[in-house]
Amino acid sequence: MKNQIDSLMQEHQIDALLVTGSAMHNPAMVYLTGGGHITSADLIKIRHKPAVLFCGVMERDEAAKSGLEVRLFSDYPLKPLLEQAGQDYTRALALRYRQMLLDVGLNKGRVALYGQVEIGPLYGILKELTPLLPDVEFVGFTRDPILMPAMMTKDPQEIERIRRMAKITTEVVGRTAEYLTHHRVEDEVLIKPDGKPLTIADVKSRINLWLSELGAENPEGTIFAIGRDAGVPHSSGNPADFVRLGKTIVFDIFPCEAGGGYYYDFTRTWSLGYAADEALELYQQVKNVYDTIVSELTQQTPFAQYQQRTCQLFEALGHPTIQSDPQAQEGYIHSVGHGLGLHVHEMPFSGAVAGQQDQLVPGVVITIEPGLYYPSREMGFRIEDTYFAREDGGFERFADYPYDFVLPMRT
Amino acid sequence: MKNQIDSLMQEHQIDALLVTGSAMHNPAMVYLTGGGHITSADLIKIRHKPAVLFCGVMERDEAAKSGLEVRLFSDYPLKPLLEQAGQDYTRALALRYRQMLLDVGLNKGRVALYGQVEIGPLYGILKELTPLLPDVEFVGFTRDPILMPAMMTKDPQEIERIRRMAKITTEVVGRTAEYLTHHRVEDEVLIKPDGKPLTIADVKSRINLWLSELGAENPEGTIFAIGRDAGVPHSSGNPADFVRLGKTIVFDIFPCEAGGGYYYDFTRTWSLGYAADEALELYQQVKNVYDTIVSELTQQTPFAQYQQRTCQLFEALGHPTIQSDPQAQEGYIHSVGHGLGLHVHEMPFSGAVAGQQDQLVPGVVITIEPGLYYPSREMGFRIEDTYFAREDGGFERFADYPYDFVLPMRT
Repeated sequence: MKNQIDSLMQEHQIDALLVTGSAMHNPAMVYLTGGGHITSADLIKIRHKPAVLFCGVMERDEAAKSGLEVRLFSDYPLKPLLEQAGQDYTRALALRYRQMLLDVGLNKGRVALYGQVEIGPLYGILKELTPLLPDVEFVGFTRDPILMPAMMTKDPQEIERIRRMAKITTEVVGRTAEYLTHHRVEDEVLIKPDGKPLTIADVKSRINLWLSELGAENPEGTIFAIGRDAGVPHSSGNPADFVRLGKTIVFDIFPCEAGGGYYYDFTRTWSLGYAADEALELYQQVKNVYDTIVSELTQQTPFAQYQQRTCQLFEALGHPTIQSDPQAQEGYIHSVGHGLGLHVHEMPFSGAVAGQQDQLVPGVVITIEPGLYYPSREMGFRIEDTYFAREDGGFERFADYPYDFVLPMRT
Repeated sequence: MKNQIDSLMQEHQIDALLVTGSAMHNPAMVYLTGGGHITSADLIKIRHKPAVLFCGVMERDEAAKSGLEVRLFSDYPLKPLLEQAGQDYTRALALRYRQMLLDVGLNKGRVALYGQVEIGPLYGILKELTPLLPDVEFVGFTRDPILMPAMMTKDPQEIERIRRMAKITTEVVGRTAEYLTHHRVEDEVLIKPDGKPLTIADVKSRINLWLSELGAENPEGTIFAIGRDAGVPHSSGNPADFVRLGKTIVFDIFPCEAGGGYYYDFTRTWSLGYAADEALELYQQVKNVYDTIVSELTQQTPFAQYQQRTCQLFEALGHPTIQSDPQAQEGYIHSVGHGLGLHVHEMPFSGAVAGQQDQLVPGVVITIEPGLYYPSREMGFRIEDTYFAREDGGFERFADYPYDFVLPMRT
């Protein structure tokens, strides 16, 4: 949680955080400012001091909503900086950063970098800035020991925001099921009222409409993958493909709050009208593995333990897994879950990147999403719900939704 | 245009481009791959060679849609890299990048960095990678001389995609006007059918719904700012504020294609029911300046020339401008326009950051958006349309929309 940031900075010898970019769709900035329509800002947080937010004059009102101290870029006018930099724009911006850092009291130590930004400009500026501040070291983490562990455990307000997204998400999934099953069918293909076949693009457009209506956004897209595509875990589905009976449909939906806030993540696998025996059997296997993993969830346990357990369960059923073959492209070929918050994937992780901090401690929000993938047999399966670890030691699913695999057509 | 990339690389002594991140909402990656549901990828383009796209095994089908050569991260398995790196994850990823670069034939020269990414991980990796490739220099540009100038001029396909967004945008603006003017009014406040006051949040939610329905996304939010907020150019409007008669409303809408593609950018200023004389006069001044600038647009001219001209016109009317006072917070206080494409703001620029390349050449897509801002008088005004420079030397507005300031209530 946020109140851990100072002690995590201390523990990892970080003297300041420099967060750059927009306050929308930029998790570190959203986390520290609360978000808002600020398109370009810098936030500097010195250890054990409140953060200071720098922005353009046009965005001062939006920035003020953060409750943070706001300073303006126009207090560091570009013209004299450009003169000082021999009209080199990159160097002028480096000189501005130098002054901003000095002004908030940072003239030495380690500064950790954060922010979803265009890499080129900032990399160029940092190359200029580094020799200008010889006692400052800029560092970037592939496994962030400060914000990611803080963000990993959610406070009650964050849990409520994710719960709201869970309600929106499952509402949209329910509407999608209703929508699909009320189409008439010709030659196994769903047909729209206008006589044309229903396409994946049509379904996704409906999904986006409903999400928007309910106050969510869908920046990462939706997976609605049929048949062979369902057998490729991250295939999003071919927009022009028709929706057909009797094919597995992996429907994985992961919207966030409008403006770029908290995510939800949810998957069901459906087969419209009927399903082949083999599909029914494989679906049941995935459901059984899902139920087993959920029933075994225990706090204060490494999340990766459940990945091993999932591989073990699928292997016992005769499926290849990435545990037996890291290059496997059929069977169970991804990790069992991940943390969720302002990132659709965040700590704790359960797969190859999991470290010793990826533990199921109180406040974590995690997906559980076992699956089986057989593109060669034109089928794939995944079941996913998002849970949080309660203070009382239990796990709670954010929203209930039925696990029916075959959805009978209503027409 | 894309076919300029190799010669721009040559001109600026760049031997390769390294583009990182998602293929959604990541302009450089969208430009070079065509976009798609690829959440994490690296693209390496050696000068005079086709680009190679690296991605995870789960996203191989999506990546294949780019038409580029696709290679998989799993061909560079992490386990031996971690062993080689003494289990240091950042170093292991640096070793992977080293091998990827060597495999596409890059062992020396200058590599330009691109991509909308989380700065921390990539900065950490680049710090490790730099000494591993002593003959390679990684560079980042604050004023990108390769992709930005290429993206600045659009081919006919890009123009058509922006035109489609123009139609969607103006359709939504029209629906918004209809929606607003069909509310009943109590004490100057618009009232919804349920008897509650209409808020800015209500209006924005409607706008997002319509955009979604028409196949657009709104990642940067919408400006719908009333009264004093209209007087602060980038204030997005307070969601809880009521919509009132007789106040200036700056409505600036800049959606993009669903999935993160081309943008449109459009502004109208409205006053519902009636307007104060002073507001009518200031609006007319902005409209006259807009008309003058549009009538004077000439190709092969620096865009910044029109910024000077706009300041001159507003100053002649007695308004402060950022030309007379760079710190001005009232009057005309931003630039007259900017390029538009996969970025909502891109080359050519007309304001302080404009350089000698920011010229109105054939194929550029630009906004023209003069405005006046008087927060102290609780009013602000902006008119904005997007134009492109035709091959025949003329300029064309993408979509027409009326310039009415006072919108009569229809109830």
